[in-house]
Amino acid sequence: MEPHVNPEVRRVADDIGSMEIRGAAKIADAAAAALATQAKESDASTPEAFRSEIRVAARTLHDTRPTAVSLPNALRYVLHGMEGTTVEQLRESTVAAVERFRERLERSQADLGAVGANRLKDGDRIMTHCHSTAVLACVEAAVAQGKELTAVVKETRPRNQGHITAERLHELGVPVTLVVDSAARRYLNGVDHVMVGADSIAADGSVINKIGTSGLAVNARDRGTPVVVAAQTFKLHPGTLTGHSVDIEMREESEIVSAEERAAIGDPTVENPAFDVTPPRYVDAIVTERGQFPPESIVMLMRELFGENTTEPWLQSVT
Amino acid sequence: MEPHVNPEVRRVADDIGSMEIRGAAKIADAAAAALATQAKESDASTPEAFRSEIRVAARTLHDTRPTAVSLPNALRYVLHGMEGTTVEQLRESTVAAVERFRERLERSQADLGAVGANRLKDGDRIMTHCHSTAVLACVEAAVAQGKELTAVVKETRPRNQGHITAERLHELGVPVTLVVDSAARRYLNGVDHVMVGADSIAADGSVINKIGTSGLAVNARDRGTPVVVAAQTFKLHPGTLTGHSVDIEMREESEIVSAEERAAIGDPTVENPAFDVTPPRYVDAIVTERGQFPPESIVMLMRELFGENTTEPWLQSVT
Amino acid sequence: MEPHVNPEVRRVADDIGSMEIRGAAKIADAAAAALATQAKESDASTPEAFRSEIRVAARTLHDTRPTAVSLPNALRYVLHGMEGTTVEQLRESTVAAVERFRERLERSQADLGAVGANRLKDGDRIMTHCHSTAVLACVEAAVAQGKELTAVVKETRPRNQGHITAERLHELGVPVTLVVDSAARRYLNGVDHVMVGADSIAADGSVINKIGTSGLAVNARDRGTPVVVAAQTFKLHPGTLTGHSVDIEMREESEIVSAEERAAIGDPTVENPAFDVTPPRYVDAIVTERGQFPPESIVMLMRELFGENTTEPWLQSVT
Amino acid sequence: MEPHVNPEVRRVADDIGSMEIRGAAKIADAAAAALATQAKESDASTPEAFRSEIRVAARTLHDTRPTAVSLPNALRYVLHGMEGTTVEQLRESTVAAVERFRERLERSQADLGAVGANRLKDGDRIMTHCHSTAVLACVEAAVAQGKELTAVVKETRPRNQGHITAERLHELGVPVTLVVDSAARRYLNGVDHVMVGADSIAADGSVINKIGTSGLAVNARDRGTPVVVAAQTFKLHPGTLTGHSVDIEMREESEIVSAEERAAIGDPTVENPAFDVTPPRYVDAIVTERGQFPPESIVMLMRELFGENTTEPWLQSVT
Amino acid sequence: MEPHVNPEVRRVADDIGSMEIRGAAKIADAAAAALATQAKESDASTPEAFRSEIRVAARTLHDTRPTAVSLPNALRYVLHGMEGTTVEQLRESTVAAVERFRERLERSQADLGAVGANRLKDGDRIMTHCHSTAVLACVEAAVAQGKELTAVVKETRPRNQGHITAERLHELGVPVTLVVDSAARRYLNGVDHVMVGADSIAADGSVINKIGTSGLAVNARDRGTPVVVAAQTFKLHPGTLTGHSVDIEMREESEIVSAEERAAIGDPTVENPAFDVTPPRYVDAIVTERGQFPPESIVMLMRELFGENTTEPWLQSVT
Amino acid sequence: MEPHVNPEVRRVADDIGSMEIRGAAKIADAAAAALATQAKESDASTPEAFRSEIRVAARTLHDTRPTAVSLPNALRYVLHGMEGTTVEQLRESTVAAVERFRERLERSQADLGAVGANRLKDGDRIMTHCHSTAVLACVEAAVAQGKELTAVVKETRPRNQGHITAERLHELGVPVTLVVDSAARRYLNGVDHVMVGADSIAADGSVINKIGTSGLAVNARDRGTPVVVAAQTFKLHPGTLTGHSVDIEMREESEIVSAEERAAIGDPTVENPAFDVTPPRYVDAIVTERGQFPPESIVMLMRELFGENTTEPWLQSVT
Repeated sequence: MEPHVNPEVRRVADDIGSMEIRGAAKIADAAAAALATQAKESDASTPEAFRSEIRVAARTLHDTRPTAVSLPNALRYVLHGMEGTTVEQLRESTVAAVERFRERLERSQADLGAVGANRLKDGDRIMTHCHSTAVLACVEAAVAQGKELTAVVKETRPRNQGHITAERLHELGVPVTLVVDSAARRYLNGVDHVMVGADSIAADGSVINKIGTSGLAVNARDRGTPVVVAAQTFKLHPGTLTGHSVDIEMREESEIVSAEERAAIGDPTVENPAFDVTPPRYVDAIVTERGQFPPESIVMLMRELFGENTTEPWLQSVT
Repeated sequence: MEPHVNPEVRRVADDIGSMEIRGAAKIADAAAAALATQAKESDASTPEAFRSEIRVAARTLHDTRPTAVSLPNALRYVLHGMEGTTVEQLRESTVAAVERFRERLERSQADLGAVGANRLKDGDRIMTHCHSTAVLACVEAAVAQGKELTAVVKETRPRNQGHITAERLHELGVPVTLVVDSAARRYLNGVDHVMVGADSIAADGSVINKIGTSGLAVNARDRGTPVVVAAQTFKLHPGTLTGHSVDIEMREESEIVSAEERAAIGDPTVENPAFDVTPPRYVDAIVTERGQFPPESIVMLMRELFGENTTEPWLQSVT
Repeated sequence: MEPHVNPEVRRVADDIGSMEIRGAAKIADAAAAALATQAKESDASTPEAFRSEIRVAARTLHDTRPTAVSLPNALRYVLHGMEGTTVEQLRESTVAAVERFRERLERSQADLGAVGANRLKDGDRIMTHCHSTAVLACVEAAVAQGKELTAVVKETRPRNQGHITAERLHELGVPVTLVVDSAARRYLNGVDHVMVGADSIAADGSVINKIGTSGLAVNARDRGTPVVVAAQTFKLHPGTLTGHSVDIEMREESEIVSAEERAAIGDPTVENPAFDVTPPRYVDAIVTERGQFPPESIVMLMRELFGENTTEPWLQSVT
Repeated sequence: MEPHVNPEVRRVADDIGSMEIRGAAKIADAAAAALATQAKESDASTPEAFRSEIRVAARTLHDTRPTAVSLPNALRYVLHGMEGTTVEQLRESTVAAVERFRERLERSQADLGAVGANRLKDGDRIMTHCHSTAVLACVEAAVAQGKELTAVVKETRPRNQGHITAERLHELGVPVTLVVDSAARRYLNGVDHVMVGADSIAADGSVINKIGTSGLAVNARDRGTPVVVAAQTFKLHPGTLTGHSVDIEMREESEIVSAEERAAIGDPTVENPAFDVTPPRYVDAIVTERGQFPPESIVMLMRELFGENTTEPWLQSVT
Repeated sequence: MEPHVNPEVRRVADDIGSMEIRGAAKIADAAAAALATQAKESDASTPEAFRSEIRVAARTLHDTRPTAVSLPNALRYVLHGMEGTTVEQLRESTVAAVERFRERLERSQADLGAVGANRLKDGDRIMTHCHSTAVLACVEAAVAQGKELTAVVKETRPRNQGHITAERLHELGVPVTLVVDSAARRYLNGVDHVMVGADSIAADGSVINKIGTSGLAVNARDRGTPVVVAAQTFKLHPGTLTGHSVDIEMREESEIVSAEERAAIGDPTVENPAFDVTPPRYVDAIVTERGQFPPESIVMLMRELFGENTTEPWLQSVT
Repeated sequence: MEPHVNPEVRRVADDIGSMEIRGAAKIADAAAAALATQAKESDASTPEAFRSEIRVAARTLHDTRPTAVSLPNALRYVLHGMEGTTVEQLRESTVAAVERFRERLERSQADLGAVGANRLKDGDRIMTHCHSTAVLACVEAAVAQGKELTAVVKETRPRNQGHITAERLHELGVPVTLVVDSAARRYLNGVDHVMVGADSIAADGSVINKIGTSGLAVNARDRGTPVVVAAQTFKLHPGTLTGHSVDIEMREESEIVSAEERAAIGDPTVENPAFDVTPPRYVDAIVTERGQFPPESIVMLMRELFGENTTEPWLQSVT
């Protein structure tokens, strides 16, 4: 019999899949919280049944966004903390692991923000792409230090996450200029830092982030503008230590063009990759909650955090 | 008393201004045709009145798109051909000049297409940005030679002229892949030529074209993909011989974000430049109806065509 | 009845095809001389028969090396000079045209050598690839001016034309270091000029030369070593004015690996392109008998020499 | 009295010197095995005599290829493992050390292959230079995963090790295109990865590999093609931690040109360096049995493996 | 008997040699004026004596600054205009030629200024090196158009010509920031144009200018800042059409370090080259009185002005 | 009551401030020695008074050169070693700490020199900027190994520290060519290594060194000349681990131009930054007493030496 999955888990999984919940930190947080709900509301009668429920819930969450590296990291952390010999012990340890994870997650963003803020000077102008809570944490910390910043925000087709960024920066008191993605090079001239988040970061120093990041980074290097990637260490993709590349999610073509429009223009093939890969030579620094790093050294941090062991433990736990 | 402007001239001017009519060749053609209508339907009773009407019509057309270099070239040609001492002579000479201009314009595109087609090989894949009839002429000529091509088309925010390009390529039997502008770098890998049009070309070899062209060209150079600009010689901007830069049109912010959305995201400044400037070092060849040229030599072609005289004659004629 | 082709023409054609005769100047010279032999020894009885013989001889010679741009130029020159109404007049004019062509050809090399020699300083070290009489003319003129030069010579697989260059330089008193092609980058360090010839030069400034030239030029640019191309103006390919690319000859795979060796190593596909294409951005100067030019301006020299007329006259003459 | 060196040791030393045995793994393996033979067949009567024999055998092997970094690593490992107070104990421990080393060596290549295979995708085309068992291990692992690959193989003058690579790839079912070294740039266009081995790797991230590697890497970077170096960690040169550079072996000139040919072409100096140095900025990743690394981080791995102690222990043992 | 040289000619020659008179336009102007004085005050009794005086005066002036290309151009112009059969005719024609030259020289600077001013926008910040009246003409014209500019001025060791530039800019109302030469890169960040003069310009597009120009241009390109060279066409060096390079003047070491200081620091070799060579790929535009040009096309302008004839006529006249 | 500061401390502080004492090692050494003097000559009667004296002395020294990273490192080391419960114990421990620090400092320079010397080959030519004892240590060690070197020394305006370097190199027997800073690019051609010191080194791999270093490094990369930074590990700036940038000292404008000259040239703003920032991509290796490192890996060495703890302990001690 198939273990019961809590409706809240299904809702969170759906929201992650539809990008209602987006941004790696929010996904990790929501996924962890959903596991807590699953644990709290479980009416499993045996430890085995409880474990199965949690694993299936984790798998359900995991399968929504295979490239969102924070998701498996969150699940791995919680499953690793689940221990005990009775249902009640398992429930308690799982809920406690979720709380530790979320608390640490919350602090890590502030820590990252403090590091990133130190790179920003009063009067600086940043350019950003997509919506990244890590970037916002850096800006927020800089603003809290009394620095006045301005921002150029790319709208980030096809889903316009730049609008969210614009709104958040406005709330922080940062004046925003909104431009189409194609206008980036023209506006790089007065920009002091390109600052973007990351979907995940590979052992070879490549940064996987929202489609358009690599083209922006190449232009920034060409103009001499530093490129800073803000990313918590849960974005460091352990599978890449052994040469695996990060799969790039292909999203619905309807995000780009409606079925009617598409038919009207001769039914072209439409491709909608969610992310692209920026080689390390176009990135000046990766800002994390543990300090800043040139992208070429990030592999040593990954080894420090994850060791040479490269099979993903949460997959083992789920099986 | 203000001279009468023919409603057709106003309609064409409006259509140029609203981008109903777009693409430099179409603008030049429509502007010339509008002057013919003005001439044919004029009921001016004196040569002076007739000349005034034509000049005001030309000025009306000219003021709609100051950066569209083909527009002043077309007007200049027609005004230059207007001659005679009676209203009837003026009318006839004006209409004849329009016909010569349009005929030459039409042939020049085919000539350019033949040159550009020679650069394309059977099986090649091109990437293009915005919508350029010159690029389409090259593709059409190549297809007519029996070459099979495929194309990656950038949608070209904010006005999605890539959709028009996709449709025209489809009509030519060229399979199209449509992507968002940000995806360009990712798709450069399998592309043999980036092929774009030009709004105008400067004496220092810079290419002024739809916003996003320069960022694409920088990425193409970084990947080793040749960049070809297809442009008839009426795009060579004579004012740049004396160091003038080409003004970049700033368009309505509503093309990027509606007033409601804008208010909802904190009322950011919205900037919507229509064009950007690609330095010659990122362009491999400029294909014209007179052959192909490295961008650094285009100034010598301009001198051959326009001489060192640099005041714009059509402005003198209009005054 | 098929017109008679003189055995000397066939021999020259064979020698060009087998690379017994190599180097663009020698090919042009030999082809012109062969036409003189054809003319002198012809026993055609009518002017038509004589013209046919010459055209077929020209076509025979032309078809041996379609990418050797000097060959059609030589043939074009001679055919253009063939005139008269009797066999004897045709014979005389043809022989005279050959003599003029060869004389001019000979002087143009010395003129080019003088220009190239001016770029070389006493004590300079050059690196060269393949065998180019134009490069040797520059070195010879520099040596005649009392400059002491040294040379690094790449062997130039698969046919080792570097050995010929080494021998000629030795005869000029220039000490030579011979290296394999792969060692070029290592030896660029102490080199003052990379100096190569050209098979042909395109209107977009690209240089078509022996396979390996483009890779060498990219490395030279990376090390800051100037790249000089020495080429008489008969190498400027008029077809490229209208966008045609230069076809790259694919030669016998047996030049690379014998049939036995090939079978022994698993019968790989073997590809043996004779030439490659160096974009103008890797070339510092093109030295011709009419002076030196940046590659980006060579199109204007082509227009000066050949006009905008772009159909190849010698093809018309032959037909 | 000079200690006895086993004929098998001499044979192996000769084969290493004449490149009968080539490829770093095979050299290390053969050298270790030769030491086992020396140990097994020794008739030394005292521990001192035994130690002397082993050291002299090691020195004999070491002196054949001073730049082959795997050789001293292998010798170091075995000498380090030789311990005991009787001849029999010394013999046993030496043989055991050889066995451990060879077993570990064998597994490390498979581990490296698995990492490298993960970088390759189904349908990818690689270009390779010289013959590297590490590269072949990556290809073999990828093929075992069901990926279809194709390869462009440079012949690698002067010794044509590319022929061996072609044969091995053929055995793995990988279709090969064989080209001369100079043709590399022309064929980079359709290539997804340049994949080469390494003779040794320095602390500053430089890769010492077969002559021609650096020129290829510069061209690959210019075309945007990633360069992957496959090398087991025994290639990391500990002496470079303290700034030593790796000596480049100069080989016989007769490998390039026979004495007769050389005399015939004016007796040029012939230089035949076996290797060159590729700076880290042209290398995207170094694939080892411990994972993949950007070249700039390899120094930290060296410190992890070798510590800051930088005098070569095997030299101390030999003395 | 040695012809008499007017003391004013000697004074001007001395002032050019000691750099009391500096800047190419001032040198040309002063040299021409000196020839007029020589002509006016000559008491030569025969046409031959008069001609000899003028030639010796010209040679005297010429020998002070062999690399100052405007000097021979000025002398050439005047000598070319000297004609007649009596002393009085020679005197008059010489004085008239000087007047024409100086008038034309004066206007050409204003024309150049107008072209250069068109490249500058209101609010722009320029960086300049050394002292160039051509650059100042551009700034002056821009200021006259009502544009507000600011400037970063490099002091330009060893002779601190930047101080003169600072003073002149101050007089034009342009706020100046003075920095040492080494600080250039740091201040490039907010600069819109690097604008420098030229000592001479070569047919291959190279710009010969004050030592430090090439290093500045390389940094400007690295930061994406356009480099504009302002130079009247008398700076185009005709000798370079035939491959000659421009000799670089080596000046007194005492300009760098006094004899005492030099002795005190161990008596190093001191080298004081006056100029360096900037390759065309680091220059965006050359602004002349005849319009602006990419450096790669300047050779075609040279051919237009000077033809293919390349022996320097003024040398012929002097002999 | 304000604690007594020993006159020797004030003298050293003044000498550091006026650059009488310069070079990071000398500053650290002098500051430590000054603290020993303060400790030895203190007549404080209570432990508290003694501690206060030392802290105030440290603060006095520290405030003279906030960007000289070795200064706080030296002070931190000594303050950390000060321990005990009586004045005599405090005095002894402080003096002992100073001795340990100075001894270690002295050896570290020799260790660094040995590493750097290994990168230099017999016959090499180096170019250097400013005056660095670390660079001199490398040269000295190389000379001691019997290598013959030559050097190009930039004078290093405005304070001409190049003169000191010239003198020291002369004492080591190294022939020196002295040039102005602007001449660097011209002399890079024959240079094998650019070798400079560092004021401090940041976690992102940036090198902070004397103004002019970054412009030199960009030119060196453009010419393919390796750039080596020699710096002891006390130059690694721990504050940069958390994103802080290194403040750049702005020095007196009178170092550049006297008040009179400044008034005479229109009273420009004068800016005199002491240092600039060279991004890691222009640096080939950082040579330290612990080996050589690519700049991108230096952050891992910093973490090894300083941990993730990032508040500066000596500031805490001073409180």
